[in-house]
Amino acid sequence: MTPLERLGARRAQLGSPLCLGIDPHPDQLPVGVTADVAGIERFARGIIEAAAEHATAVKINVAFFEAFGADGARALARVRGDVPRDLICILDAKRGDIGSTAERYATALLGELDADAVTLSPYLGEDALAPFLAFDDRLLYVLVRTSNPSASRIQDLDVDGQPLYRIVGRWLSDTWTDGRVGLVVGATATSELEALRTDLPEPAFLVPGVGAQGGDLVAATRACDGRRAPGLVTVSRAIAGASRADDWAAAAATAAEALRRRMADAVLPSG
Amino acid sequence: MTPLERLGARRAQLGSPLCLGIDPHPDQLPVGVTADVAGIERFARGIIEAAAEHATAVKINVAFFEAFGADGARALARVRGDVPRDLICILDAKRGDIGSTAERYATALLGELDADAVTLSPYLGEDALAPFLAFDDRLLYVLVRTSNPSASRIQDLDVDGQPLYRIVGRWLSDTWTDGRVGLVVGATATSELEALRTDLPEPAFLVPGVGAQGGDLVAATRACDGRRAPGLVTVSRAIAGASRADDWAAAAATAAEALRRRMADAVLPSG
Repeated sequence: MTPLERLGARRAQLGSPLCLGIDPHPDQLPVGVTADVAGIERFARGIIEAAAEHATAVKINVAFFEAFGADGARALARVRGDVPRDLICILDAKRGDIGSTAERYATALLGELDADAVTLSPYLGEDALAPFLAFDDRLLYVLVRTSNPSASRIQDLDVDGQPLYRIVGRWLSDTWTDGRVGLVVGATATSELEALRTDLPEPAFLVPGVGAQGGDLVAATRACDGRRAPGLVTVSRAIAGASRADDWAAAAATAAEALRRRMADAVLPSG
Repeated sequence: MTPLERLGARRAQLGSPLCLGIDPHPDQLPVGVTADVAGIERFARGIIEAAAEHATAVKINVAFFEAFGADGARALARVRGDVPRDLICILDAKRGDIGSTAERYATALLGELDADAVTLSPYLGEDALAPFLAFDDRLLYVLVRTSNPSASRIQDLDVDGQPLYRIVGRWLSDTWTDGRVGLVVGATATSELEALRTDLPEPAFLVPGVGAQGGDLVAATRACDGRRAPGLVTVSRAIAGASRADDWAAAAATAAEALRRRMADAVLPSG
């Protein structure tokens, strides 16, 4: 099965677009977990072990491992290896480069680490996507409208009466129609998410920002339904940070199960 | 001395903006250098040893090391350590993320690897720059107009009668006026480089694309002159690939010296 087929099967099985986000910051670990690379790894693997059963995908943020150099790279490989094979593993790297450089990033993320999917930046155009698309069954999620306060600086600039992010989204939607290229749209950008949902009925969405960042779970879940490929709603801190006490793994499992149910309930009948 | 002061001193000493680019692809190594991480490291260190004396800065592309996982991370640290202290070391990473993720990338690149400068993507706005600016003496080079064929896809979109890249360049130039934020503008985008040079007389430029990519050396060199901070013209393959035979180090030194002289000759009298 391709990553897209596995994603579809898992989404159908769980009835929810919950994507488990792994972003282990050394300052946000539970008591008893050391604020070093060993602690980061232990925590990340513990969260995956506890909560992956409730998730349709796992998104690992590579920055939190890169900060520890070679030790972090080894830890990342082990954490990635812990993702159960029936869930797709997204490496959140937001790379944006070209030519042989992009080819090397693709080798690192899709080759060596064998990710099913990556996040990428659109600023350099299709050249930045091509070496990743050359891995012919993997998924790409490209930044369209992000959820941070300064997202509007560039992404909302007016291009012929439309905000830039809609031009970017339309380009991606019109160019890659086989379901392998999805759009990253932050859940806190509620009106932008709704506009894209209406404007571009086909491409899959990857929606971060639900939970700690305050995005609307129901809106995010519904925006992911009934599209070319199953969308995903990423939750990190509301699961991994559910408890900072030594019941953190059990608390993460409980939080993930509750989120999976809330998302399943929010799915429209047609979804 | 801060990185900006070291850059200024070195630029004055050599009279040229030559930046030595280190992008070692395993398929492009000289005979006798193995196509593995050991070969990549040996080649990168050999090129720096041979050619750095003719360069004002060294730009290391991190993707070529990331492709080798933990071994690559260790090699990158050693290569970075080989850059002589009077040259600034730019880590070309083009990161573009926010919040704690961007803080972790800054920790990796400016903290652990102790780079003097990094390259970054503008798509997420100032939030993506802030954690790097928090390292209060380092330099940031932000993508404005790149040199790849599909650069125009997003960067040339018309925003109120101006191409997007000029809006991005103006935002950076107007917002950070202390010389720490420069603009990446490809040498192959000759008319765009000239437009930015005229439009934005202050910010430093980092100009890749001279040499193998066909950019105009004289135009690139002149675009870097007489600005708030010294600009840099990056050359990679025309130095590192000067010979694929076993005289590669000597050939790189010769090529770098010739490029330094050609750039010094191209500098305007006021530069």
